[in-house]
Amino acid sequence: AGDAAAGKTKSAVCAACHGANGVSMIPMYPNLAGQKAQYLENALKAYKAGQRGGPTAALMNPQAANLSDQDIADLAAYFSSL
Amino acid sequence: AGDAAAGKTKSAVCAACHGANGVSMIPMYPNLAGQKAQYLENALKAYKAGQRGGPTAALMNPQAANLSDQDIADLAAYFSSL
Repeated sequence: AGDAAAGKTKSAVCAACHGANGVSMIPMYPNLAGQKAQYLENALKAYKAGQRGGPTAALMNPQAANLSDQDIADLAAYFSSL
Repeated sequence: AGDAAAGKTKSAVCAACHGANGVSMIPMYPNLAGQKAQYLENALKAYKAGQRGGPTAALMNPQAANLSDQDIADLAAYFSSL
């Protein structure tokens, strides 16, 4: 399972687009705060696997590419806890 | 621009997975309430264009397939207003 505390540490790079507390200031970037952890994991894994296209994929694919399954679980646990 | 009232009417079919008020009861399905409207539009258009793969695409692609741009704008306006 994901560790929200570890996820918080790993989420520093996410804040630039998704906001310091998971609420984005930029219309194109989704809020992550309070989102379903399982959905966040599936989304990150889809970006990692290159299964997502569209405008945001060009940005998100490289972000997700180097994440381990544990990183993904931790990040999902963290953002869903906000 | 999207019309939230029209979006509410069109959102009946979405409630089954995303919850009556845009907060899903099912871990795999994302909450939509309060999400960024532009992001919701981009996501629906990506599903409509078949640009998204992964677990949820099989469910969402047919849902999005018959939506017009106005439907998409209205749904995005509605859910982002919750």
